[in-house]
Amino acid sequence: MTSSAVHAAAIRVPESVLRAFTESAFRALNVPADDAVTAANTLIEADLRGIGSHGVARLDRFYLRPLELGLINPRPRWIVRAETPSTASIDADGGLGLSVGARAMDLAIAKARESGSGWVTVANSRHFGAAGVYATRALGHDMIGIGMTNTGPIVLPAGGAEARLGSNPIAVAAPTADGSPFLFDAATSVVSAGTFDTYHRQGKRVPIGWGLTDDLQPLRDPARGPGGRRILPLGSDLEHSAHKGYGLAMIVDILCGVLSGMGPGLAIAGAGQAGGYQSAHFFGALRIDAFTDPAAFRQTMTDYLSALRGTPPLPGVEAVRAPGDIEAATIHENRTRGIPLYPDSVENLRSVAQRLNVRFDWEPGDNDGDGGTGT
Amino acid sequence: MTSSAVHAAAIRVPESVLRAFTESAFRALNVPADDAVTAANTLIEADLRGIGSHGVARLDRFYLRPLELGLINPRPRWIVRAETPSTASIDADGGLGLSVGARAMDLAIAKARESGSGWVTVANSRHFGAAGVYATRALGHDMIGIGMTNTGPIVLPAGGAEARLGSNPIAVAAPTADGSPFLFDAATSVVSAGTFDTYHRQGKRVPIGWGLTDDLQPLRDPARGPGGRRILPLGSDLEHSAHKGYGLAMIVDILCGVLSGMGPGLAIAGAGQAGGYQSAHFFGALRIDAFTDPAAFRQTMTDYLSALRGTPPLPGVEAVRAPGDIEAATIHENRTRGIPLYPDSVENLRSVAQRLNVRFDWEPGDNDGDGGTGT
Repeated sequence: MTSSAVHAAAIRVPESVLRAFTESAFRALNVPADDAVTAANTLIEADLRGIGSHGVARLDRFYLRPLELGLINPRPRWIVRAETPSTASIDADGGLGLSVGARAMDLAIAKARESGSGWVTVANSRHFGAAGVYATRALGHDMIGIGMTNTGPIVLPAGGAEARLGSNPIAVAAPTADGSPFLFDAATSVVSAGTFDTYHRQGKRVPIGWGLTDDLQPLRDPARGPGGRRILPLGSDLEHSAHKGYGLAMIVDILCGVLSGMGPGLAIAGAGQAGGYQSAHFFGALRIDAFTDPAAFRQTMTDYLSALRGTPPLPGVEAVRAPGDIEAATIHENRTRGIPLYPDSVENLRSVAQRLNVRFDWEPGDNDGDGGTGT
Repeated sequence: MTSSAVHAAAIRVPESVLRAFTESAFRALNVPADDAVTAANTLIEADLRGIGSHGVARLDRFYLRPLELGLINPRPRWIVRAETPSTASIDADGGLGLSVGARAMDLAIAKARESGSGWVTVANSRHFGAAGVYATRALGHDMIGIGMTNTGPIVLPAGGAEARLGSNPIAVAAPTADGSPFLFDAATSVVSAGTFDTYHRQGKRVPIGWGLTDDLQPLRDPARGPGGRRILPLGSDLEHSAHKGYGLAMIVDILCGVLSGMGPGLAIAGAGQAGGYQSAHFFGALRIDAFTDPAAFRQTMTDYLSALRGTPPLPGVEAVRAPGDIEAATIHENRTRGIPLYPDSVENLRSVAQRLNVRFDWEPGDNDGDGGTGT
């Protein structure tokens, strides 16, 4: 995990400041007020959990610029292409993935309330941010939440020399009896594209087994990664079951791209502007009381995560963590102290404020130490 | 893949012979005729696909012996603990996983026909064989099929020194327009326990990154593997995202063990007799026409798999394969030439025949070359 390295160089900006600014920026680009609130929330929730690679640092490049270029439709027509008691197939009309995704996840939750489970595909959307944020929307409803998206081709099939798969993340969230839910949110590639950027920022070489160069040698220089985009699937090589990461990426592509009717990620040609390319999603919600007693489920989950945290660690490993532990610790810290941003990200937000004529009237000295809790 | 190595040493027995024998063996141990047919089918379907590690070679040790010892209930009472239009929670009363699993998967398919999707948990079952066999039951209904199971602890959490997770496989099947469906069926550990046995049989050392010894060194001797049971999760080490294989194993455990109300795999104490320990499963079916046109889906799938097979391979790699390709080729070969079994497995079946007083009246010379196609 790289959160401590991020914090060392970071400026902490209160959640409330970033939330209000992000909403204003979307509204300034003709996004309706309710969608602007929802979209800002998706980015801020990622930042609060320490997933800074999918937060407001990407606001301009992944969402505002594509809106300005007409690659994202600010006022999409939401089309239900097919529907059953437990499923829906949505065409998002090129809308902002950050709000489209939340609305689709909430539809899955509503269907689960009626029918025990809900499953929603979304075609013709755009970059939706962090998959885990959608999965966690189910937690307050005593449901297990699932979120996935396909992306354009940046990952090699197992044994292949050309990228034909997206990083295709899978997120699953499940409630517990304490404040630390289970949250799995991971690309099906060995690492996400953003991790190469983080290593580049930190001046570090990447380990062998993460990617290949254009001449198919082990990639060590992270700066060469995002150009070539030959990231390896989870497993890294055939001897360590890269066919499993490859197959998992395909499952995501089938549920998102093929089942939605849009097509798999490799059909997304000329991605061009970051965030402005086509994307398809898959959301799911399972009502826990449709299977077992929710209170017993939550307690068993807490005991289960505790048992795993209690595993004796390997030499050199501080402690075994449960998926979601870092996020739960980070959300508390970031709510209290503010969301950490690199100085260049803060500068970028200031330039956005000027360009769109919206207010970003905050200076490092304004941070009163306990930050804002947002509204 | 190890199928060619298996074939070199193997005796081929016609599918019809093995199917009739397996049914008779189950019936001899008080399993009702319809369950015996279903359970035999689950094993034979695994063998036909080349998953010999989960086929009739395990009949005696994983299923017949536990039946004789009273660890598997031959005539379970099927209890529906909870039900909604798209879900069901089953208690399998200690029944034979091979037939319980098929019945539960068919219930998921029936619910999907009515409600768009169907999701079934099964508590208090026993070893169910190959997850992929259940997922493929959805294909003929133009559905995507999903099968999972938890197992007792043999896999290390990421960064941990003690096994607390099962091999917890995930299987997903989706139809195509040709005879080669998408079929993903993989343990969430870097390799399954059976792969260590295969390497041991072949006198090969296992690669670094598959498991650890009791003193936490890289395991190279596969014979030492099954004792210690310190298999690594997919990703192998923290630097190559072993936390992802670990998290995926937990997702399977949550959906199977916790959601079913039975509890996670680490609670399965004293597994003792192979196949006789508790197990919980999760099955799912998604009706394709609830989302998109099934004919278009199948054609897109065929094009998608073709595009992936057409990826230029890395040096030293013959070709990029799609998940399910080996199974599709093997099923044709094994239907035609017979199912390959090691000589000691055939000897074991003969001893079973004698012990249970059922017929296994087949000799290598009886194989007429085109085998049986079964009934």
